[in-house]
Amino acid sequence: MKLGLISEFDAAHSLPGYEGKCARVHGHTYKVEMVVSGSVGPDGFVMDFYRLKKILGTALQDLDHSCLNDILPNPTAENIAERIVLRLRSELQGTSVELFSLKLWEGKNKWVMVE
Amino acid sequence: MKLGLISEFDAAHSLPGYEGKCARVHGHTYKVEMVVSGSVGPDGFVMDFYRLKKILGTALQDLDHSCLNDILPNPTAENIAERIVLRLRSELQGTSVELFSLKLWEGKNKWVMVE
Amino acid sequence: MKLGLISEFDAAHSLPGYEGKCARVHGHTYKVEMVVSGSVGPDGFVMDFYRLKKILGTALQDLDHSCLNDILPNPTAENIAERIVLRLRSELQGTSVELFSLKLWEGKNKWVMVE
Repeated sequence: MKLGLISEFDAAHSLPGYEGKCARVHGHTYKVEMVVSGSVGPDGFVMDFYRLKKILGTALQDLDHSCLNDILPNPTAENIAERIVLRLRSELQGTSVELFSLKLWEGKNKWVMVE
Repeated sequence: MKLGLISEFDAAHSLPGYEGKCARVHGHTYKVEMVVSGSVGPDGFVMDFYRLKKILGTALQDLDHSCLNDILPNPTAENIAERIVLRLRSELQGTSVELFSLKLWEGKNKWVMVE
Repeated sequence: MKLGLISEFDAAHSLPGYEGKCARVHGHTYKVEMVVSGSVGPDGFVMDFYRLKKILGTALQDLDHSCLNDILPNPTAENIAERIVLRLRSELQGTSVELFSLKLWEGKNKWVMVE
């Protein structure tokens, strides 16, 4: 079974070397959907959503209310998503679930997804 | 081709033995997304959405405006989703489509999915 | 990695030979989600969203503010989606990404998806 959890973080970024508006410092409310897969245990849960929420919160902590360029040299949606995936894989190690995918929306109508 | 249909039902539940707020009787507007797969027929449909709507409505009928603990001993999102899947598989038997997945949102930001 | 881009178009249609309300000329704000897959390049992009937006816009251009029956003899959601897929495959030829799926919502609660 798969579990999905959605969260958001607010951050500034600019794309160095980009020809166009994205070269200017601007910001987004990034929406994140983490999907994990696992089996239903005898307690009826794959994993308690409260625990998943903490894991996702920890993985997003330094990104929220930050300037992403202080963390990543080229903070495209693709590069931000890959960074979150690395953090989540580390946070999920030793638990009963595996990361299936991570979707990152930059605005309302566009997203990138790592599987 | 895949077809998706979204519906909702309102229900109360509590999780017996859970340590935390979910042990109290509370409720959700559960959102459900059924996905079926099939081929496009000569009429241009995989299946008429009106027919799919009836099938999903039948599968959710006893859950809507119910206390889920009267139906399931431990109504976690996982267990509710599995029950809906059993009902849908039975309702879809003999039709031209197969159930591909069932997603159940408990609130706006979290869901479980059976495939 | 996958990239998703959402757009909308407004169109009228009627389903000839259908028994029910869909036989009447009516309309929808169709929502479209194009998903493409590709690798992240040295610039940090799979494909610049501005370029993807143009490609999707071109594929939807003749459908927006049209009567779909002037374009397709039987404009069911399934047939409209397949037409958009043909256009997108042609527009994406020679680029670094491939079409993974095309989802078309007819209203808020139902969709068809070609993969």
